[in-house]
Amino acid sequence: MAKKSADLTYKSYLGLETLLEAQHPLSEAHDETMFIILHQTYELWFKLILFELDRVQKVFGAKSVPDSDLRLVSASLSRSVNIMQLLVRQLDIMETMTPLDFLDFRHVFRSASGFQSMQFRELEVRLGLRHDDRVGYDGKSFENFLPSEDRDALHRIMKKPALVDQVSAWLARTPFVEMGGFSFWKAYRKAVVDMIANDRDAISKSKRMPQAAREAELAKLKNMQLQFDQLFGEGGGEPLPWRFTKPALQAALLINLYRDQPALQVPFQILNSLMDLDELLALWRYRHALMAQRMLGTKMGSGGSTGHDYLAATASKHRIFKDLFALSTFLIPRSKLPKLPKHVEERMGFKYWDKAEDAA
Amino acid sequence: MAKKSADLTYKSYLGLETLLEAQHPLSEAHDETMFIILHQTYELWFKLILFELDRVQKVFGAKSVPDSDLRLVSASLSRSVNIMQLLVRQLDIMETMTPLDFLDFRHVFRSASGFQSMQFRELEVRLGLRHDDRVGYDGKSFENFLPSEDRDALHRIMKKPALVDQVSAWLARTPFVEMGGFSFWKAYRKAVVDMIANDRDAISKSKRMPQAAREAELAKLKNMQLQFDQLFGEGGGEPLPWRFTKPALQAALLINLYRDQPALQVPFQILNSLMDLDELLALWRYRHALMAQRMLGTKMGSGGSTGHDYLAATASKHRIFKDLFALSTFLIPRSKLPKLPKHVEERMGFKYWDKAEDAA
Amino acid sequence: MAKKSADLTYKSYLGLETLLEAQHPLSEAHDETMFIILHQTYELWFKLILFELDRVQKVFGAKSVPDSDLRLVSASLSRSVNIMQLLVRQLDIMETMTPLDFLDFRHVFRSASGFQSMQFRELEVRLGLRHDDRVGYDGKSFENFLPSEDRDALHRIMKKPALVDQVSAWLARTPFVEMGGFSFWKAYRKAVVDMIANDRDAISKSKRMPQAAREAELAKLKNMQLQFDQLFGEGGGEPLPWRFTKPALQAALLINLYRDQPALQVPFQILNSLMDLDELLALWRYRHALMAQRMLGTKMGSGGSTGHDYLAATASKHRIFKDLFALSTFLIPRSKLPKLPKHVEERMGFKYWDKAEDAA
Amino acid sequence: MAKKSADLTYKSYLGLETLLEAQHPLSEAHDETMFIILHQTYELWFKLILFELDRVQKVFGAKSVPDSDLRLVSASLSRSVNIMQLLVRQLDIMETMTPLDFLDFRHVFRSASGFQSMQFRELEVRLGLRHDDRVGYDGKSFENFLPSEDRDALHRIMKKPALVDQVSAWLARTPFVEMGGFSFWKAYRKAVVDMIANDRDAISKSKRMPQAAREAELAKLKNMQLQFDQLFGEGGGEPLPWRFTKPALQAALLINLYRDQPALQVPFQILNSLMDLDELLALWRYRHALMAQRMLGTKMGSGGSTGHDYLAATASKHRIFKDLFALSTFLIPRSKLPKLPKHVEERMGFKYWDKAEDAA
Repeated sequence: MAKKSADLTYKSYLGLETLLEAQHPLSEAHDETMFIILHQTYELWFKLILFELDRVQKVFGAKSVPDSDLRLVSASLSRSVNIMQLLVRQLDIMETMTPLDFLDFRHVFRSASGFQSMQFRELEVRLGLRHDDRVGYDGKSFENFLPSEDRDALHRIMKKPALVDQVSAWLARTPFVEMGGFSFWKAYRKAVVDMIANDRDAISKSKRMPQAAREAELAKLKNMQLQFDQLFGEGGGEPLPWRFTKPALQAALLINLYRDQPALQVPFQILNSLMDLDELLALWRYRHALMAQRMLGTKMGSGGSTGHDYLAATASKHRIFKDLFALSTFLIPRSKLPKLPKHVEERMGFKYWDKAEDAA
Repeated sequence: MAKKSADLTYKSYLGLETLLEAQHPLSEAHDETMFIILHQTYELWFKLILFELDRVQKVFGAKSVPDSDLRLVSASLSRSVNIMQLLVRQLDIMETMTPLDFLDFRHVFRSASGFQSMQFRELEVRLGLRHDDRVGYDGKSFENFLPSEDRDALHRIMKKPALVDQVSAWLARTPFVEMGGFSFWKAYRKAVVDMIANDRDAISKSKRMPQAAREAELAKLKNMQLQFDQLFGEGGGEPLPWRFTKPALQAALLINLYRDQPALQVPFQILNSLMDLDELLALWRYRHALMAQRMLGTKMGSGGSTGHDYLAATASKHRIFKDLFALSTFLIPRSKLPKLPKHVEERMGFKYWDKAEDAA
Repeated sequence: MAKKSADLTYKSYLGLETLLEAQHPLSEAHDETMFIILHQTYELWFKLILFELDRVQKVFGAKSVPDSDLRLVSASLSRSVNIMQLLVRQLDIMETMTPLDFLDFRHVFRSASGFQSMQFRELEVRLGLRHDDRVGYDGKSFENFLPSEDRDALHRIMKKPALVDQVSAWLARTPFVEMGGFSFWKAYRKAVVDMIANDRDAISKSKRMPQAAREAELAKLKNMQLQFDQLFGEGGGEPLPWRFTKPALQAALLINLYRDQPALQVPFQILNSLMDLDELLALWRYRHALMAQRMLGTKMGSGGSTGHDYLAATASKHRIFKDLFALSTFLIPRSKLPKLPKHVEERMGFKYWDKAEDAA
Repeated sequence: MAKKSADLTYKSYLGLETLLEAQHPLSEAHDETMFIILHQTYELWFKLILFELDRVQKVFGAKSVPDSDLRLVSASLSRSVNIMQLLVRQLDIMETMTPLDFLDFRHVFRSASGFQSMQFRELEVRLGLRHDDRVGYDGKSFENFLPSEDRDALHRIMKKPALVDQVSAWLARTPFVEMGGFSFWKAYRKAVVDMIANDRDAISKSKRMPQAAREAELAKLKNMQLQFDQLFGEGGGEPLPWRFTKPALQAALLINLYRDQPALQVPFQILNSLMDLDELLALWRYRHALMAQRMLGTKMGSGGSTGHDYLAATASKHRIFKDLFALSTFLIPRSKLPKLPKHVEERMGFKYWDKAEDAA
């Protein structure tokens, strides 16, 4: 915290003397100033996202998460999503520069590169990107491109719990999955089995369907069954490569399916924001890849891979919350959903109704 | 320019050590960090707009403006427009803060306020906002709220030529307005007179039009005539309060009307970008006003005016290029336009065609 | 609902044969097609906003609002906000047309005008814009410009409950404002009185503050007190012109102040979305006003007011949820908030904790 | 053109009676209306893009392109770019729907799919996407999913000249590439050869560079040389797979390098807009892919590929103007550019300067 002062001005409060003197172009090229300022704003926003993430991780890192803290999580995630949307949009400004203008000063960077943005690396790690899931660059780990002190700092961060695992632990504690004799997982499995059996029956009996169509439909159903078998750990196929623990997955599914229940509305929003964030990071990487291609053409790095290829690969591979996306595979229509037992549904509501009824 | 160095890193190039240490919240309120970073990015972008304006003003400040410099002007203005769009959008992030969250730390500012953003003041002045055209705040000039050194700095800037006047001077030199015996202004006036006479004739003779409609149409026409009389300095009415000189206005009209001619395409884009910029500044002020109302309610300042009212007033009164907007009043349909004489139209084209024809 | 069909295609499902044949330019002007399509997309989106509003009003129109329905309201409002943001952005496309291009075909409209968009009028009325609060155009009610059948239709809509009044009624039923001996209003008033007294005391006793500053601070405080007196209906000043009923206002304030409580999180989001919507409508009108000025200049209508002036006036006067904005005036810092009694706070929580504790 | 009429209203002009009755949901699901309207607006905007493309192709399809027509091309392309940005943004609205909500009605489509959007297919074909360059779906050509009449219509469109080829032909006619004894290509090749030789020399002689760094730099240079050899058709390597003809490529490079010359400013903007369009189509496909993953999970189609995989593949493979991106590979710094001979540079200017000089 800065020293409070009677003569605080706008300038001193925002540290503008420092901030507005921190642009040091290394060439005479007009567009280098834009390039520097654009990257500086990126870094300022990254700092803010990390700051919001601090709050989110502090809440999720606690032994238990009071419901009144969930609004804080939701607010911090929404803000981060909003910032990421801005950052995607902000690339428009980069593209007011032409490749020829970029060529005027890109030699000054030498080996310096956006690769070395420690805040972005920290963000990836804290969200939950694991070292082994990273795409290599020129066949090497990206760490080779970092100064050793940064590498060490990153290793320290890697040792702390990642958000994805904290979320998994929080989900796993959701009480409604097993409550007073009700097992959501059993009920869900039964609903799926019934649904598939009914569908198979209907298709087989359908007289209007031509033979080829019938077979195609049955093949699809078979396929669906295999996927559900994997989900339920049956049929002997390989288990699905989930990142969440099994109880967390079950809770995430339950939250998606019964999100209208008061106790699940904010948790549902949180899962949604996590997907937004994951998607926007992918989109940002992809736009970045397109821009790299435009600025640099297909000029190859020494080892053969281009910035474009690397960035496009990270867009599809550096996904953190893909479990949440994969869950859509296992949703079943609302009409087929197991109805919650009254004693479970009631406890998803607010206490004040009790008394309201008392009063009535 | 910074010292070139073999060990340049991303961090040192962008001055991140300074930049990411320049946030000094004065309270424990969570949202103050967002508030600071958001304003810092605003100031960084303002710096860039001023930097682009340097280039624009340098070109327009020269005695003559080579056509090859116009792309630079156009590029700098487009970039500034793009940035202003981002800045309007960026207020979304401010609105992820609620009024109650703001209340947690707004006492720390005391008399410090966005009012004191010197870069924004500089931008206004350099574009051409005149001291006397400014909306007062609490009945006082905004200068009362500036530290005296800033006030002096601003006065120095006010003495330099403003963009709007540079543009006016540049427009006034447009060769095609008077060229080899052709007077655009005479030709245009004749076209207007003919158009109004024809329209009056047609309305008067129209048999199908009911009397009331006829009178309404004639009243509109009369009105239009009065406006054109003012434009042409006839009829004894008050002259219109233009900021541009008369030759500049004539040229701006010509550029709007014949913008498809090769020599006018880029000048037309430049006028368009100036309107975009003016409009976006108004929009930014207006969104700002809405946000102030949301954050602060209708709580009054000591003198009675609220931030919202002040900002909304600046949105409509602090316009710089309103002449360009007003010109739309005086456009006439393409079908009524005076045809350019061949010797004028030819000189609006490129030289290479001459030779191309030679060759043929 | 359309007939289900085995040969449903993308084209038939979306009614593309009709939709893509519904553009009928009345001139040869190139840009008229853009003008038509742009307005058609506006109307399609308005239809969707009205459809979402149906759901919102259905929920709020019910005698009591189950908490599980609040997610539907919140979802429909968020979607509407998202659409309104798009509609503001969409004006960018209109501005790819120049005033001269518009002049090529604007004569075809005759008296037809965006004024006559019945869906937009319906939206205004259903949100809660009252006839007497409307800005006139050329000194006449806007209804004069509508065909009589549309006027009648609008009058029928006016007779139905508006959203703003439904929200007011819903808020007024919030149980926590008076609960088991706790009166929020009394507690709040006491907190305000104490806060002002303390502040006055601190200012009076402050030795470091110069006399002039002290007086200014005391004047501000006096002002604040007067405003709170009006809120609490004391001091004999004029009552504030609230649209909400008094119990609704109290509840809205309570929701803002204690929004972290589980039972208030979604209600708080709903109030927030209503403010977003109100703000975006104002912003849309204002951008519209700027665009009208750009396209039409300052050409006057027969009665003297321009489209720009009218639209800018509606931006500031056609506000529906201004009570929610005004509430910010009456927020007090969290540290001064009355602490909720335990029995009230508990009932803002979820039921499942009871049992969780039982189990422990 | 519609019949002009004295009783034209807003409603009749826009065909609202038809338009607002063209939504026919096939289920009771709330979100189906959003789904329909969103797709309808997409189709309306596609219609407009195709309409703008008509104008662009008409200009480029002519034997010669008058410079005064280039503004029309530039305006139509800018507008299309603006629309595509909106369409990317518009997916935000789709994502206000959750996967479970989608599940409520996605069974109604049966085999109908966005795949069948004929306007989008037409857009792809007219821009220049070739049948053989298309990504297959489930191992089949996408045509298998079209009704036969649509397939035939598409084949007719395929026979007409595509924009990419028209642009190539227009570029190939650029006069400055060979003009009065000046050969741009020869001059450029010499500049490249000199640049590489100088760089090699500088690296070899550098004493401060460690051996390993020197070798890496030399390897990069070698690589660059190989690429330029391919460009110039030397060294016996495989020719690069350009879509443009050789003269078109040379002209595109010249326009990029000398874009400040008056005669090249608008052509440069046009090339830039074509890249914007190509990039935005890729971005739109990619966001679409992310959305498909979110809505549908990883549920497999009968043949094994998912919508997500297909769409992501089209984002990277269905690029039309990649030659323009690849050109960045072959730009050389401004300081190394061959200076244009005076007689060429002069002819890139405007005629009016001649006379201006005459007059002086």
